[in-house]
Amino acid sequence: MPNPSILILPGDGIGPEVMTEVRKIIGWFGEKRDISFDVSEDLVGGAAYDKHGVPLADETMAKAQEADAVLLGAVGGPKYDDLDFSVKPERGLLRLRKEMDLYSNLRPAQCFDALADFSSLKKDIVAGLDIMIVRELTSGVYFGEPRGIFEEGNERVGINTQRYTESEIERAARSAFELAMRRGKKVCSMEKANVMESGILWREVVTRVAADYPEVELSHMYADNGAMQLVRAPKQFDVILTDNLFGDILSDCAAMLTGSLGMLPSASLGAPMENGRPKALYEPVHGSAPDITGQGKANPIACVLSFAMALRYSFDLGAEADRLEAAVEKVLADGVRTADLLASEGVSPVSTSEMGDAIVAAL
Amino acid sequence: MPNPSILILPGDGIGPEVMTEVRKIIGWFGEKRDISFDVSEDLVGGAAYDKHGVPLADETMAKAQEADAVLLGAVGGPKYDDLDFSVKPERGLLRLRKEMDLYSNLRPAQCFDALADFSSLKKDIVAGLDIMIVRELTSGVYFGEPRGIFEEGNERVGINTQRYTESEIERAARSAFELAMRRGKKVCSMEKANVMESGILWREVVTRVAADYPEVELSHMYADNGAMQLVRAPKQFDVILTDNLFGDILSDCAAMLTGSLGMLPSASLGAPMENGRPKALYEPVHGSAPDITGQGKANPIACVLSFAMALRYSFDLGAEADRLEAAVEKVLADGVRTADLLASEGVSPVSTSEMGDAIVAAL
Ligand SMILES: CC(C)[C@H](C(=O)O)[C@@H](O)C(=O)O
Ligand SMILES: CC(C)[C@H](C(=O)O)[C@@H](O)C(=O)O
Repeated sequence: MPNPSILILPGDGIGPEVMTEVRKIIGWFGEKRDISFDVSEDLVGGAAYDKHGVPLADETMAKAQEADAVLLGAVGGPKYDDLDFSVKPERGLLRLRKEMDLYSNLRPAQCFDALADFSSLKKDIVAGLDIMIVRELTSGVYFGEPRGIFEEGNERVGINTQRYTESEIERAARSAFELAMRRGKKVCSMEKANVMESGILWREVVTRVAADYPEVELSHMYADNGAMQLVRAPKQFDVILTDNLFGDILSDCAAMLTGSLGMLPSASLGAPMENGRPKALYEPVHGSAPDITGQGKANPIACVLSFAMALRYSFDLGAEADRLEAAVEKVLADGVRTADLLASEGVSPVSTSEMGDAIVAAL
Repeated sequence: MPNPSILILPGDGIGPEVMTEVRKIIGWFGEKRDISFDVSEDLVGGAAYDKHGVPLADETMAKAQEADAVLLGAVGGPKYDDLDFSVKPERGLLRLRKEMDLYSNLRPAQCFDALADFSSLKKDIVAGLDIMIVRELTSGVYFGEPRGIFEEGNERVGINTQRYTESEIERAARSAFELAMRRGKKVCSMEKANVMESGILWREVVTRVAADYPEVELSHMYADNGAMQLVRAPKQFDVILTDNLFGDILSDCAAMLTGSLGMLPSASLGAPMENGRPKALYEPVHGSAPDITGQGKANPIACVLSFAMALRYSFDLGAEADRLEAAVEKVLADGVRTADLLASEGVSPVSTSEMGDAIVAAL
């Protein structure tokens, strides 16, 4: 059997820097554990635009479709702010999500013990926090038609369409319930069924899917209340299921509760391919951080933990994922900190590369 | 000149209880300050449905259009959860907003000194917090057409439409800039211009309006980042300007930062009427709280402070509004607390009515 393949798309800003550290980890697995991958690399986002005039070349898209897993760094930056909407760096990422049909976006919001003080929330509110947000990723207002800016009378109107079919809701819901079965057996579904018909359909389909998972406790919450409850008492949640746009906002809100955006990975999963592996893209939740790009300050942990998710969800190497996550926890417990994780003066930060080395050493 | 008129719509749940306390305050202004209002009362939400089969009778709508200010308590409750979408309690509120054309929803998120400990956030992050969220309230996905649940092939699809015209964006933006001029002179506008064309138009129009307010510093932020920044460092904001749906979620998130939802008022303003007063509806941010309804536990302060906003924005009685707000601060500083404001055991809470009396005494 050939080695499983990984396509690395470092992207923009700190993307390439953090990806260098992931390559060290991949190297370690090959050398020490005889777990090897065929790794190739390509461009996405602004980097792709600079070379090809588009944020994702067709050729890269084709490679992503073939890969057993895609690892993405980050896209975007001020240099590209004035580009036309259709070629903005984000469009590259959105094209990957849409064409690979990655409908289930898993965003863990976990508070690491060693970092609980680092949150803007009180320690007792967030210590031990472990939420999984499942965000529908291929539909809703991100992709619905009609969309655009149109003339109407003597002014313009901006239009986007929120749109969910029953089957789109159903498959996202199923993935949330499957995850809940392996976790705390609770799903809280969030929408605005009190104002949006798409939310009514969402609630109805989720309720129907729940019948197949009698062990899982399902609750529903309006998304505005969801944002409140995340801030008030986030530990009440196990799995949160929500749509593309609400998921964008609520997962960022949840991410910030942990106080350490530089720590948070994500997985975007689609249907199984012929080899049984799901189509999959893994990326850190943080962005391209243009303000610190090229300074060796970036925290590579979110990207490293995204690779851990790849081990778990794409390669069925749960034990190896655990090992990598434990290595990260050990490094943190040892007090190794990149600049973003320094709450107090006095401790001096390690560089991106030193953090990568420390994780490899801890492995 | 006749007295200015106020239409009180207590609504459901704790609405009537908190409104009773506001009536005491109104009474005090009449007796002690010779500021009298013509007060009438009517039904909205579930209460209106029970009597009329609709959550807002046409007759009530007409009265609201005539009133100098409308004070609303809260709508909704489990009893009405299974009603058809078109007659849900919320539709009464949405009809008021839409037909009165209340495009500018002001939601202050203020952290009261006496309550800073009560937030789930660290005290230094929220003490002294004073943000004003301006949420567009009459358009966007709340009202856009097409909307509904439709058959498509052999399944159903739920559709809502996000829709903003230039003039809708412009008038909301203007109200945010006007407010900023009287506050910290900063406006941060939030949308998802990186994924939604309606967000691109939003950003463009807001930027254009900003040119008329050279003293105000304008910034733009993606709404997901906005949610993060609200949790991370809310004091960076002065006025936040955003659309109907993002405003719903972000204002609830901001509200929860203060730790005291029972404290937060809101004003929804439209265009000036013939007498120069804006069309206006004032309501607490909290909901109908069915769990504590009828127990005398509700905190009337949010509703009282909504009346203070009415004094300021509808009746040009800024000094009286200040006086009422100072009375609330005094009562809090004196340690008077309803049950929702009790962080620790040992102190015993006052009832809704005792809180109202304490505020009147402090006036
Ligand atoms: C970069 C952007 C298009 C993206 C989104 O809005 O989905 C990001 O915010 C995310 O959450 O992954
Ligand atoms: C009750 C509901 C319709 C309403 C809304 O979604 O606008 C509420 O959440 C609010 O924020 O005033």
